[in-house]
Amino acid sequence: MGLNVYLSGEIHTDWREQIIDGAQGLDIIFSSPVTDHDASDDCGVAILGEEPNKYWHDHKGAMVNAIRTRKGIADADVVVVRFGDKYKQWNAAFDAGYAAALGKSIIVLHGPDHQHALKEVDAAALAVAEEPAQVVEILRYVLTGALPS
Amino acid sequence: MGLNVYLSGEIHTDWREQIIDGAQGLDIIFSSPVTDHDASDDCGVAILGEEPNKYWHDHKGAMVNAIRTRKGIADADVVVVRFGDKYKQWNAAFDAGYAAALGKSIIVLHGPDHQHALKEVDAAALAVAEEPAQVVEILRYVLTGALPS
Amino acid sequence: MGLNVYLSGEIHTDWREQIIDGAQGLDIIFSSPVTDHDASDDCGVAILGEEPNKYWHDHKGAMVNAIRTRKGIADADVVVVRFGDKYKQWNAAFDAGYAAALGKSIIVLHGPDHQHALKEVDAAALAVAEEPAQVVEILRYVLTGALPS
Amino acid sequence: MGLNVYLSGEIHTDWREQIIDGAQGLDIIFSSPVTDHDASDDCGVAILGEEPNKYWHDHKGAMVNAIRTRKGIADADVVVVRFGDKYKQWNAAFDAGYAAALGKSIIVLHGPDHQHALKEVDAAALAVAEEPAQVVEILRYVLTGALPS
Amino acid sequence: MGLNVYLSGEIHTDWREQIIDGAQGLDIIFSSPVTDHDASDDCGVAILGEEPNKYWHDHKGAMVNAIRTRKGIADADVVVVRFGDKYKQWNAAFDAGYAAALGKSIIVLHGPDHQHALKEVDAAALAVAEEPAQVVEILRYVLTGALPS
Amino acid sequence: MGLNVYLSGEIHTDWREQIIDGAQGLDIIFSSPVTDHDASDDCGVAILGEEPNKYWHDHKGAMVNAIRTRKGIADADVVVVRFGDKYKQWNAAFDAGYAAALGKSIIVLHGPDHQHALKEVDAAALAVAEEPAQVVEILRYVLTGALPS
Amino acid sequence: MGLNVYLSGEIHTDWREQIIDGAQGLDIIFSSPVTDHDASDDCGVAILGEEPNKYWHDHKGAMVNAIRTRKGIADADVVVVRFGDKYKQWNAAFDAGYAAALGKSIIVLHGPDHQHALKEVDAAALAVAEEPAQVVEILRYVLTGALPS
Amino acid sequence: MGLNVYLSGEIHTDWREQIIDGAQGLDIIFSSPVTDHDASDDCGVAILGEEPNKYWHDHKGAMVNAIRTRKGIADADVVVVRFGDKYKQWNAAFDAGYAAALGKSIIVLHGPDHQHALKEVDAAALAVAEEPAQVVEILRYVLTGALPS
Repeated sequence: MGLNVYLSGEIHTDWREQIIDGAQGLDIIFSSPVTDHDASDDCGVAILGEEPNKYWHDHKGAMVNAIRTRKGIADADVVVVRFGDKYKQWNAAFDAGYAAALGKSIIVLHGPDHQHALKEVDAAALAVAEEPAQVVEILRYVLTGALPS
Repeated sequence: MGLNVYLSGEIHTDWREQIIDGAQGLDIIFSSPVTDHDASDDCGVAILGEEPNKYWHDHKGAMVNAIRTRKGIADADVVVVRFGDKYKQWNAAFDAGYAAALGKSIIVLHGPDHQHALKEVDAAALAVAEEPAQVVEILRYVLTGALPS
Repeated sequence: MGLNVYLSGEIHTDWREQIIDGAQGLDIIFSSPVTDHDASDDCGVAILGEEPNKYWHDHKGAMVNAIRTRKGIADADVVVVRFGDKYKQWNAAFDAGYAAALGKSIIVLHGPDHQHALKEVDAAALAVAEEPAQVVEILRYVLTGALPS
Repeated sequence: MGLNVYLSGEIHTDWREQIIDGAQGLDIIFSSPVTDHDASDDCGVAILGEEPNKYWHDHKGAMVNAIRTRKGIADADVVVVRFGDKYKQWNAAFDAGYAAALGKSIIVLHGPDHQHALKEVDAAALAVAEEPAQVVEILRYVLTGALPS
Repeated sequence: MGLNVYLSGEIHTDWREQIIDGAQGLDIIFSSPVTDHDASDDCGVAILGEEPNKYWHDHKGAMVNAIRTRKGIADADVVVVRFGDKYKQWNAAFDAGYAAALGKSIIVLHGPDHQHALKEVDAAALAVAEEPAQVVEILRYVLTGALPS
Repeated sequence: MGLNVYLSGEIHTDWREQIIDGAQGLDIIFSSPVTDHDASDDCGVAILGEEPNKYWHDHKGAMVNAIRTRKGIADADVVVVRFGDKYKQWNAAFDAGYAAALGKSIIVLHGPDHQHALKEVDAAALAVAEEPAQVVEILRYVLTGALPS
Repeated sequence: MGLNVYLSGEIHTDWREQIIDGAQGLDIIFSSPVTDHDASDDCGVAILGEEPNKYWHDHKGAMVNAIRTRKGIADADVVVVRFGDKYKQWNAAFDAGYAAALGKSIIVLHGPDHQHALKEVDAAALAVAEEPAQVVEILRYVLTGALPS
Repeated sequence: MGLNVYLSGEIHTDWREQIIDGAQGLDIIFSSPVTDHDASDDCGVAILGEEPNKYWHDHKGAMVNAIRTRKGIADADVVVVRFGDKYKQWNAAFDAGYAAALGKSIIVLHGPDHQHALKEVDAAALAVAEEPAQVVEILRYVLTGALPS
C-alpha cells in the first residue's frame, strides 16, 4: 500500500518540509498548492493579462490555482489541512470541506487554541494533530503498522 | 421550477430573515443550521452526556449539528454562504468547499474587505454579493426572469 | 410516468411555445433558461454591480444564468436542444454536452442544413427532429405509447 | 504531480503543436481527437460500410470518433478547448459542456471577438486564454509554480 | 415505504396485468415499456421520417423507446425482468444488466427450462420467480411484511 | 426540513416503538426491516419454494429481505443502528457499513458494554446513544433546534 | 493513449483470437471471461462444494464468474460484445446492458440476421460490426487515426 | 488482468498468510488492516495523546485505523471477509457492508456454524468459502481460468 497525500493550508512555516522529511522511506507521493505567496496571488494576471480591478486580479489567480488544488485533492488518499496562527485561512477550511465531500481521509493540524473555532472541521477528520511529527507518525502507522517507540 | 436554498454561515445578524422575507412569494424552500449559538455549541453534551474535556464537548456537538448541515446542503440547489465581520467562520468556508465538491450552485455573501481572503471561496461561486437584497434579486431572477427595476 | 423536460437553445423563435402548447394534457413539467435576451445578458451587472470591462459584464451574467441552467438540466429526464439558423449558439452545444455527460436523454431539434456541423451533437441524442411538432409526438409516445395517426 | 491534458476543438491550425512543443520537459500526457479532417469524417463508413444517406454517413463517423473523444476527456485532468475563426465548431462547445459536467478543469482558448458568444463556455472554465503560449504558461505554473519571467 | 417497480421484458402474455392486478392496494407505482409491438417497432420512423434501410428503421425506434426505458429503470426501486418462451429477448437481458449496474433490486421471472441459460442474469437478482403471483407476494412482503397464508 | 430515518438492527425489544412514539409531531418518515423474526427467516422459501438445504433456505430469505433493506437505507437521511445484548447481530453492523459507504448520517444505539467491540462502527457515526430517548432528542434537535429542558 | 478492451459474449468461435492477433502492435490490454465452457459452468461447485440442485450448481458458478466479468467491464474503456449464431446468449446482452449503464464505449459484433432482435443493444453501441477485422480497424483508428487502405 | 485483494476481519489465526502463500505466482496485490491487536487498539493515543476515557481512547484509534481500512477497501477489486470463532467481529461485518455499497466483489470466509447468523452478509457475497485454500482457488480461477485438479 502506498499513499497520495495532499498538504493543504498555511504557507508561512516549514510544516510541509517537516512532514516530507520525516516521511522519507515511506511509500508516499506528496503534493501541495503553490506555496510562493506572490506567485500564487499574481499567477492569473501574470499569464492571462492585467486587471485594473483587484477583485478580478484575485479571481483570475484563484481560478488558475484551482487547477492544481483540485487535481491534488482529487488524487489524494489523505488530505492534511494545516491552520496556522495568523490570517483567515478560509482556503484551508474550503479545502477541508471539499475533501470531506469527496470522502477523503482528512488529518487536521492546528494548535489547541483553535479547537473551538475548528470544531466543525475537526469533526470531519479522522485525526487531529498539533505537530507535524504526529502527522508523520500517523502516515507511518497507516503504511507499516509501526507505532512511535 | 422551485429551489431549495441552504443558508450557511454567520449567525449573529438577521441576514437570513432579510433573504427569507425578501423572497416571499417565490417558490423556495429555505433551510439553515441551528442558529441558536448556545444550543449549537451544547447540543452534543446536552443530549448524549457531559464531557469534562472541552475538545470532546465541542466534538459531540459538531457531529450532531452535522446531521442537519449535511442534509441541508445535500438537498440544496443553491447554497448561500455568508461571511460576517467577526470570528474565524471556518465552518462557513468548510460548507462552501463541501457544497462546491457536490456541484451545488454557490452564492457568497460578504463585504468588500474580505475579497482577498475569500478569493478561493469566491472562485467556486456563481455569484458574489455584498447585500442580502442582492441574493433575493438573484433568486427572483433565477426563478422568474425578472430583474430589479 | 411523468417527465421533466428542459428546453435549451435558440431564443428567437416560438419553438418552446409550440412544444408546450402541443404537449398540453401530458404529464410534463417544462423548464427553460431565461429567454429574454437583454435580461439574460445583463442580469449579472443589474444585480451585482456594473463592470466597465465587457468580458466581466458577460461573465457575471453567464454565471447567474448558470444557476438556472444547471438546475434545469440536473432535474430533467429529457433535454431538448434547439439550434436555429443564426448565431454561434455555442451555449446550446455546451448544454448538450453537459446533458450527455449526465446521461440525460437528449432530443436535438434543427434543420437539415446543420446536419454535418451537428453530427457530434446528434450522435449523443436519442432523437433528432426537424420540427417542434415531432418533439411533441416523441414526448406523447414516450408517455402514452400513442403514435401520430 | 503530472497532468493528463486533452486538446479539444479546432483542427485547422497548429495550436496543438505549439502547446505540445512549448510544454516539453513538463510531466504531461497530451491526447487529442483525430485531427485528419477527412479521416474523421469518413471513418465510420470506411470501416463499417457505406451509407447512401449523408446523415447516417456522418452519424457512423461521429460515433466511432466518440470512442476516442470520451476516453480522452474521461482520462483528462485538464481539457483545453480551442475555438478558431471559422465554422460552427459545435463539437468543441459540446466537449466543453461534457467536460464541465464531469468536473474537469477547463481552459478555453479563443480570440477576443468570440467573448460574447462564448460567455457560457468561458463561465465554466478556470482560465480563458487567447494564445497557445498562455496555455503552456498555465500548465507550467500548475506543475512547477514557475511564472513567465 | 412505497415502491417504484419497472416491468421489463416479454410483451406477448398478460403477466404485467397479473402483477398489477394482484398488487392492488399496495403502495406501488408501476411502469413499463410500450408494449404495443407494432408501435414499439415503428415509433422512430412514424415520428421522425421513413428509412429505406431496415437497420436504421429499427435504430430510430430503439432510440426513441430508450427514452422511456431509461426513465423507467432509473426511477425504479425494483426491476422485474420477464423471459417468455419465445424469441431472443435480448432487450430483457440488456435491461437486467443495465439495472444491475445501477444497483437496482432485480426480480427475474421465467420458467424452469431457462435456468441454465439465464444463470448470469439470475445471479444478479435478489429473487427468481416462476409465476407472476410470486412477484406479487414478494412485493407485498417487502411493503407489509405479510407472507402468503 | 423533514427526515427519512431507517431503524436498523435488533428486533427483540420495543426500541423502534419508543423512538417512533417519542418523535410524534416531528416531520419524520420512519422505515424498518421486517421485524417478525419468523417471517424474516422464512420469506424466501414461503414465496419462492422450499429448499432442503438450510443454507439456501436462509439465502433466499436474506435476498428477499435485502429488497426492503436496501430501499430503506438508500432513501434514508439518517440510519439508526441498534445493537442489543444478545446474538451476533452481524446484519446490524453490515447495515452500518453499507450506510457509511453511502455517506448517510449514522446514529448508533447500544449499551456501554459494547463500546470496545463497536469502536469501528461508532467511529463512522455522528452520534452514539445509549437510550432510544436520546435518539428522539437528536432527531428533535436536528429538525427544530430544541434541546431537552 | 492506450485502451483496455473487454471481449464479451460468444465462446465457440475464434473471434477473440482474430481481434487480439489483428491488434498486435497497438497499445491495448485485452481481457475476457473464462472461455472454457466446462470450467465456466462448474467452477462454483468444483471449488466451493457440490450442489445436488442444478439451479444452485449454476448459481455458484455464475457468481464466481461474476468476479472476473465485473472486473473486466469495470476496467474497460471499450466493451466488445459478440453474438454468435446459436444459443440464447443472454449473458452477452446482460454484459452490454451493464456496460451501457456504466457509460462504457460499446462495439457490438453480430451477423445481419440478428439486426432486428438486437436493435436495443445496437442502439446503446458506438459501433456495430459484422466481422472481427472491423473491430480491429476501429481500435486501430481510435488509437492511431489510421484508416484501412 | 491483475487483482487488488483486501483481507478483512479476524486477526487471531494465520488465514491471511495461508491465502498470500497459496496465491504466490498470481498477479495479486494484497492489503490488510494492521493485524497487531495492541497497536491497532492503541494507535490513536500513542500518536495523538492519552485519553482518560476509554471510549475516546478507542475512538481515536478506530479513526486512525480507518485511514488504512478505507484506502484498502476503496482500492480493492475483491474484499475477503473472514469471521472466526470468537468475538463479536462487528468490524468485519461493517467492512462487508461498506464493500457491498461500493459494489466490490466480496468473498466471505467462515465455518458452517455461522451460516445462519451471517446470512445477510453471505447474501451480499459472490462466494462463501469455509477454508482459505478455497479463496486461493477462486482467485486462481478468476485470474487464470484454472480449476483445482
